[in-house]
Amino acid sequence: MMNCIIAQSGGPTAVINASVAGLVETNNKIKAFDNVYAGLNGIQGILNKNIINLTNISHDDLNTFRYTPSSGLGSCRYKLKDYKIDDSEYVKLLDILDSLDVKAFFYVGGNDSMDTISKLGALAEEKEIDIKFIGIPKTIDNDLMYTDHTPGFGSAAKFIATSTLETYLDSTVYMDNGVFILETMGRDTGWLTAASCLAVIDGKQAPDLIYLPETAFDEKSFIEDVSRIYKEKKHVYIVASEGLKNSDDTFLSAINTKGSHDNFGHTQLGGVGNYLKNLIIENNITTRVKVLELGVLQRCSMHLSSKVDVEEAYTVGCDALKYSLEGHSGKMVAIKRDSSNPYASSTFLVPAKNVANKVKYFPNKWINERGNNVTDEAIEYLKPLIFGTADYNSNNYTPVYKVFNN
Amino acid sequence: MMNCIIAQSGGPTAVINASVAGLVETNNKIKAFDNVYAGLNGIQGILNKNIINLTNISHDDLNTFRYTPSSGLGSCRYKLKDYKIDDSEYVKLLDILDSLDVKAFFYVGGNDSMDTISKLGALAEEKEIDIKFIGIPKTIDNDLMYTDHTPGFGSAAKFIATSTLETYLDSTVYMDNGVFILETMGRDTGWLTAASCLAVIDGKQAPDLIYLPETAFDEKSFIEDVSRIYKEKKHVYIVASEGLKNSDDTFLSAINTKGSHDNFGHTQLGGVGNYLKNLIIENNITTRVKVLELGVLQRCSMHLSSKVDVEEAYTVGCDALKYSLEGHSGKMVAIKRDSSNPYASSTFLVPAKNVANKVKYFPNKWINERGNNVTDEAIEYLKPLIFGTADYNSNNYTPVYKVFNN
Repeated sequence: MMNCIIAQSGGPTAVINASVAGLVETNNKIKAFDNVYAGLNGIQGILNKNIINLTNISHDDLNTFRYTPSSGLGSCRYKLKDYKIDDSEYVKLLDILDSLDVKAFFYVGGNDSMDTISKLGALAEEKEIDIKFIGIPKTIDNDLMYTDHTPGFGSAAKFIATSTLETYLDSTVYMDNGVFILETMGRDTGWLTAASCLAVIDGKQAPDLIYLPETAFDEKSFIEDVSRIYKEKKHVYIVASEGLKNSDDTFLSAINTKGSHDNFGHTQLGGVGNYLKNLIIENNITTRVKVLELGVLQRCSMHLSSKVDVEEAYTVGCDALKYSLEGHSGKMVAIKRDSSNPYASSTFLVPAKNVANKVKYFPNKWINERGNNVTDEAIEYLKPLIFGTADYNSNNYTPVYKVFNN
Repeated sequence: MMNCIIAQSGGPTAVINASVAGLVETNNKIKAFDNVYAGLNGIQGILNKNIINLTNISHDDLNTFRYTPSSGLGSCRYKLKDYKIDDSEYVKLLDILDSLDVKAFFYVGGNDSMDTISKLGALAEEKEIDIKFIGIPKTIDNDLMYTDHTPGFGSAAKFIATSTLETYLDSTVYMDNGVFILETMGRDTGWLTAASCLAVIDGKQAPDLIYLPETAFDEKSFIEDVSRIYKEKKHVYIVASEGLKNSDDTFLSAINTKGSHDNFGHTQLGGVGNYLKNLIIENNITTRVKVLELGVLQRCSMHLSSKVDVEEAYTVGCDALKYSLEGHSGKMVAIKRDSSNPYASSTFLVPAKNVANKVKYFPNKWINERGNNVTDEAIEYLKPLIFGTADYNSNNYTPVYKVFNN
């Protein structure tokens, strides 16, 4: 017997299940492995032997799963113990995989997961156990090194761009519209926030101001900019990352909660949007300020996915299987942009340890000098990633989805 | 010359522009009026003579506008002075309309707008001025009397149902998932909140608990229900209306803000979701509680509109024109459900004064006995209204929209 296993880790995305479907369908075609197992709830599920067999899933179910958001195999927040202090969990994992005749292990996740792939790969080699460890990238944050972008990002970016456009229109219907603040995810990097630049109406970018965490937030410039634009057109549309920090490296959202308690004595989590709202009111610009946090809608809206993203997520799953058969281990599948216009991409491998625990920031050269918008180069990079919309399974009323972790 | 004029009022919806397009295109076909004017920013715009001509808008622009969310003619929050104390603004409006050779006035709005239609119609009759006044219904809240439902509701309901399903999946990926609270609009009525019942996974309704403002919120039952479900499956999915009140008729969102101030001394607007979150934490059920407010996304997401809704919004515009030509005035176009399966509807007229300033509540008989869910009759009523998705204009990256109020 020669089997393989796949598991998902970290936060969900709209397309993480597409990667699993890609791997399973490729194996169904080439019959490289007798069984494709899945660990439910990531590493934690495998340690608990909570394992299912995906080999005989019907084509219809697999296809529905392919277009289902969330982590349909379940995920985990479980951190393995420090390898150098106690490698017992790594050894246990290898034993379980070995007992299942697993010859390849695939982990779909972010930079934490790549750390796991790297360490397991090294340990297997050291112990001369013939199991290949391959990482499959996944994160809406787009913050993994070496890969041009991450599966999951394009769909989140498309949802952000579309919602920016639609809420922009919604926020301009009156004669005095005040200020609208859209708060996006992206605690460490500004990729998601930047995607709002793709919202265009009458040939003009919809957001007036876009603030990324890569630029220290300057209160004085902010007040100046909002005042000026509000005076000019009685409307200001602002997009802000949840991860904005001031020049002291303090999260604005942390400042906002200071001293603020509700009637139970709990700290109120104000968020960046409410922090900026308070600044605007405090500085007498206007009292009409609306804040919208997109929250988890950014990572689960398969109904508005990017077709390019869903297809690439599928492809990295397919190629992960092929790379394992070529004998690679301890590596992550990455995406190379072969061409921007027309857009084309392919995959390649990077050592998982190079990706592990590192962060790819939004380039400073793609932020304008004033730190309140992005440049045309950013648009050129972002735009191809939100092309098209995938045809998810629908009964004409709502989407029809399928998961394996319930 | 024989002209007509149309204007929009109140909050935006995804489909309010479809009603305007329906009226303009019908006139383009039957040439009943020489010009179709539009007042920008509602009554306020007409009083300021801020008026455009829609007669020669290109077919392409009109079609793009048809599938554009928001109020593309602008809206207003302007309240006319009390008719009995001072009818000068009503008289001024009639004079402006008369000077433009306007023979029919169409107002797309909610129950406030129907009050305006009713009063203008009565005054014109009294003064023997030959202008017909027709109301076109619009509100995501679905709270207008006599009409089976309101244009705008179906698309908001579809967005809520889909987002409920997608965030439900997003909130179930871990082994211990805690509680997820989705806060919907609907300050006075529960129609929007109820639409979450249409989210189905594996043949089962996704939300565990649905709370409408028509039922007084009972803290004890809430804690019991959340505790029981959390113990059973380590996950509770709750949908709550922003308008929940306790048995004293106090908004929960108002209680939540009491005594809670941020570092500027502003009251923090906690909302219902955060109120429920605090209750759950306070009662030691779990500290893992996530709150998501859908906010204005509910009313502007044309990218996920209901096809039935967009078509009916168009039809009420077409029929408003026809009814005015038949000599009706002081009336609102309403929707009659001719059949639920297969779904079919037609329009009829109701006196605008019967609709004005009244509210249609979600029927108590469609709420379960415990007050924490809706019945099958509610599903039968709601489901046909979210059928299909309209093909909005898109460049494959983002939607392409067109408004006239910028």
